[in-house]
Amino acid sequence: MWLHASCLLDFNIPVDTPFLLMLRPRSGKQQWVGREQYVLKPSISAIEFTDPFGNLCQRLVAPAGSFSVQTSFDIEVADSSDTAFGAFFIPVEQLPEDTLPFLLPSRYCESDRFSKMASSLVQGVAPGYDQCNKIVEYIRTNIKYAPGEGQEIISACEVNERSQAVCRDMAHLGIACCRALSIPARLVVGYLETLQPMDLHAWFEVYVGGRWYTFDPTQDNLKGGRVAIAYGRDAADVAVYTQFGDPVEVLRMQINVEQISPPQY
Amino acid sequence: MWLHASCLLDFNIPVDTPFLLMLRPRSGKQQWVGREQYVLKPSISAIEFTDPFGNLCQRLVAPAGSFSVQTSFDIEVADSSDTAFGAFFIPVEQLPEDTLPFLLPSRYCESDRFSKMASSLVQGVAPGYDQCNKIVEYIRTNIKYAPGEGQEIISACEVNERSQAVCRDMAHLGIACCRALSIPARLVVGYLETLQPMDLHAWFEVYVGGRWYTFDPTQDNLKGGRVAIAYGRDAADVAVYTQFGDPVEVLRMQINVEQISPPQY
Amino acid sequence: MWLHASCLLDFNIPVDTPFLLMLRPRSGKQQWVGREQYVLKPSISAIEFTDPFGNLCQRLVAPAGSFSVQTSFDIEVADSSDTAFGAFFIPVEQLPEDTLPFLLPSRYCESDRFSKMASSLVQGVAPGYDQCNKIVEYIRTNIKYAPGEGQEIISACEVNERSQAVCRDMAHLGIACCRALSIPARLVVGYLETLQPMDLHAWFEVYVGGRWYTFDPTQDNLKGGRVAIAYGRDAADVAVYTQFGDPVEVLRMQINVEQISPPQY
Amino acid sequence: MWLHASCLLDFNIPVDTPFLLMLRPRSGKQQWVGREQYVLKPSISAIEFTDPFGNLCQRLVAPAGSFSVQTSFDIEVADSSDTAFGAFFIPVEQLPEDTLPFLLPSRYCESDRFSKMASSLVQGVAPGYDQCNKIVEYIRTNIKYAPGEGQEIISACEVNERSQAVCRDMAHLGIACCRALSIPARLVVGYLETLQPMDLHAWFEVYVGGRWYTFDPTQDNLKGGRVAIAYGRDAADVAVYTQFGDPVEVLRMQINVEQISPPQY
Repeated sequence: MWLHASCLLDFNIPVDTPFLLMLRPRSGKQQWVGREQYVLKPSISAIEFTDPFGNLCQRLVAPAGSFSVQTSFDIEVADSSDTAFGAFFIPVEQLPEDTLPFLLPSRYCESDRFSKMASSLVQGVAPGYDQCNKIVEYIRTNIKYAPGEGQEIISACEVNERSQAVCRDMAHLGIACCRALSIPARLVVGYLETLQPMDLHAWFEVYVGGRWYTFDPTQDNLKGGRVAIAYGRDAADVAVYTQFGDPVEVLRMQINVEQISPPQY
Repeated sequence: MWLHASCLLDFNIPVDTPFLLMLRPRSGKQQWVGREQYVLKPSISAIEFTDPFGNLCQRLVAPAGSFSVQTSFDIEVADSSDTAFGAFFIPVEQLPEDTLPFLLPSRYCESDRFSKMASSLVQGVAPGYDQCNKIVEYIRTNIKYAPGEGQEIISACEVNERSQAVCRDMAHLGIACCRALSIPARLVVGYLETLQPMDLHAWFEVYVGGRWYTFDPTQDNLKGGRVAIAYGRDAADVAVYTQFGDPVEVLRMQINVEQISPPQY
Repeated sequence: MWLHASCLLDFNIPVDTPFLLMLRPRSGKQQWVGREQYVLKPSISAIEFTDPFGNLCQRLVAPAGSFSVQTSFDIEVADSSDTAFGAFFIPVEQLPEDTLPFLLPSRYCESDRFSKMASSLVQGVAPGYDQCNKIVEYIRTNIKYAPGEGQEIISACEVNERSQAVCRDMAHLGIACCRALSIPARLVVGYLETLQPMDLHAWFEVYVGGRWYTFDPTQDNLKGGRVAIAYGRDAADVAVYTQFGDPVEVLRMQINVEQISPPQY
Repeated sequence: MWLHASCLLDFNIPVDTPFLLMLRPRSGKQQWVGREQYVLKPSISAIEFTDPFGNLCQRLVAPAGSFSVQTSFDIEVADSSDTAFGAFFIPVEQLPEDTLPFLLPSRYCESDRFSKMASSLVQGVAPGYDQCNKIVEYIRTNIKYAPGEGQEIISACEVNERSQAVCRDMAHLGIACCRALSIPARLVVGYLETLQPMDLHAWFEVYVGGRWYTFDPTQDNLKGGRVAIAYGRDAADVAVYTQFGDPVEVLRMQINVEQISPPQY
């Protein structure tokens, strides 16, 4: 299906402030960017680079005053995400090298402290996809999805304590548990067409059966309409914007995603 | 200055044929992509990746029949390319690691066979930028710029023998001579606003005085309006399209570049 | 100075267990490996790869039973680590790309929660090296160096709560504070000649004034005799061994480092 | 089998000269380095880095006068190289990304000019391993292996013209033909236990059936005892030493390889 998606960020910047942005989707196995627009107001110079996870990043210094970033694009994405019940666990020694960083604990996914919980959750379940699914079912049942309520990023341990979280932090818990079982897991930041209320979204992917599969603890089924913007170990790697120095004021963050007919450019 | 540029490629494909394409400019130090469009007809799935030189590449299998690729973008680029007479030679042991591959001989730049010629050309010239400039002056004087006449890619040695070449192959000769003097040099493929007749363009960059500088043997001055699409060791690395298997027929290749007002999206 | 260093690891392995090892020092700016030996008993096949931080890693599956890893090497290292009081802070927008991952919070360095503490510690101190030095002085004064007492890896937040830590975790606190000031900081795992009691050691480096500088909260002065084995964001990235699956028993871990005469091989 | 191998390089250096060296084997799928020694005389500082192909490289400035490099190591390697008659051709669109650079023409492997020859050689042969084998048989029959006679590196085209070559250049011809058939092919520089006369050796690998396979046009069978030192597109990438500036004098290059009992360190 084809989507048109946009993101509008308005800031009030007290003093010149360096930013890292990740707002340019890549074309990849699951998505093709047909048209894309990236506007900075005021128009300032920015430099792009590819980070170690393959994400397209922009570096710039936002000038004091009003500053806005507007991105939009037409993109073709899958109608639904693949599922693969029964897909097998891949022993660590056979994992591709580029999946290995996604086995290690990270800022918001303290997998080193989830061995017991993860083992207990998946007792009797076949190693691999089904374990991940079991973990996601647990999260869906036991952690209250509280969209919009959380701003501070919290970690898997903290999600467990609070029993409620936004999508990103529910994913952190899922990732921590999967890694604790030696299954590579990574966070995805992006958009989801039918999300209510519309906002940035986050979910996670696991590497089983020889490829990455999508899991989304906030959604009952893996309907498609997903746009991946960035991949990383957790929210520390894939913030759509990271600002340095004194905090700036976010006046507005507005996401829009809608299905469109295949464009006839 | 802001440019609108487009590239239209029409092929007649006898049998399904794999392609590598490099047709998506990156935002970088010298250029910012404001809007971009990438259309494949028929609409088929493609996968993007970043090659070892940082270029955005697309892989796809063109289906038998008519196949076209249309890219276009609005881009802000520099009004003129920097020059730096006197910029110093950097001893090999102090070069950044990522410049080292650009010291070695490559398919179309047989720098291992240009020591004598390069040394002789730059006799008495201060090491660094001025040597590169001298080499480009030599090429401009001694090799006839024959745009459009050459299709087969030829190497620095062959350019020397034939004494005429297209822009890409003149750059090959410049690169070979600079590398023979232990100066990193790389080919750039892209567009140049005022090129006559309009076509794809190629030039080269050298690493002296701590950064990359532009040289263009086909142009008298380094006026701006340049859009870099891809960087590489030579034309083997940065073909805008590489097809595998039996040759396909190129029906049309049409480039357009024009200056525009800063867009008000 | 020349050092001979060795590391002996003896395990009791209940069931075949995958390992990642980082036990091969690289020759680099500060150190040259003259001779090296790496022995696995029983002799099993291992595969080496370079991780995203440039560390040489080994993957293997340790067979059930007794398993030992012995590495040793002769290495030339600096007599003392450079200091650079006054070395300036580099604005984020001018940092080299490969330093950027070391600005972000990581598993054991929750820099996103250290803004207040870090700002308060360095009040009135010139941005850059002197800030880092101030932070290290604070740690040296306020956190008790408790070598050998800690086994579980703890994070900067936890070090702060407990007020005592091993070298690695003291470095975590230093890193978290430096990153909170937008100074890239990374953990180094290695050996230190005169360490008492001899053990693996860990310290950290910060990027100021255009290069990486060493800080070691456990040592009064930066005398040399340091061997770097691996660099990373924190201990999650640079464990000398990471094992997957059920825990194995470490029977012995024995480090030895001694100064030697320049070898006459 | 276990081998002890050594390489001794003696130079007479007229003026301080920058070098790139590739003389440190990596442990990998096929080989494990048990003990290694690397000696520079006089003892000067060198910096190591990993090149884009994963090779361990050393950079240094050789001081005027006598300069020698001595490396030696104990290494476990396979008893024979795998063969795989019937292993299938992998369509370009399914090749792993990191094999793609090995499809392109390079300095000494002008695959863009070998389509006709390659197609004609493999007429009627099943795509994949068997094609490569056919090409190697052709080379073995038609190009005279003239070890030690050639010093200047020559390209596939030149090998074809001269009908005799050293191992490295025979490999260049094999690589050019395989790439012309859209089969990734790379040069390997290393040692071969039973080579007569003993010298550095070079052969090539092709990617078919999902992995790299060894071919050696100079040897009748793929007996083992091979040590890979470096991988690259051709000899331009994997010179064991590359020197910059005016040529230096090589006084001696001595290779020794012998089988040993499994070492009991």
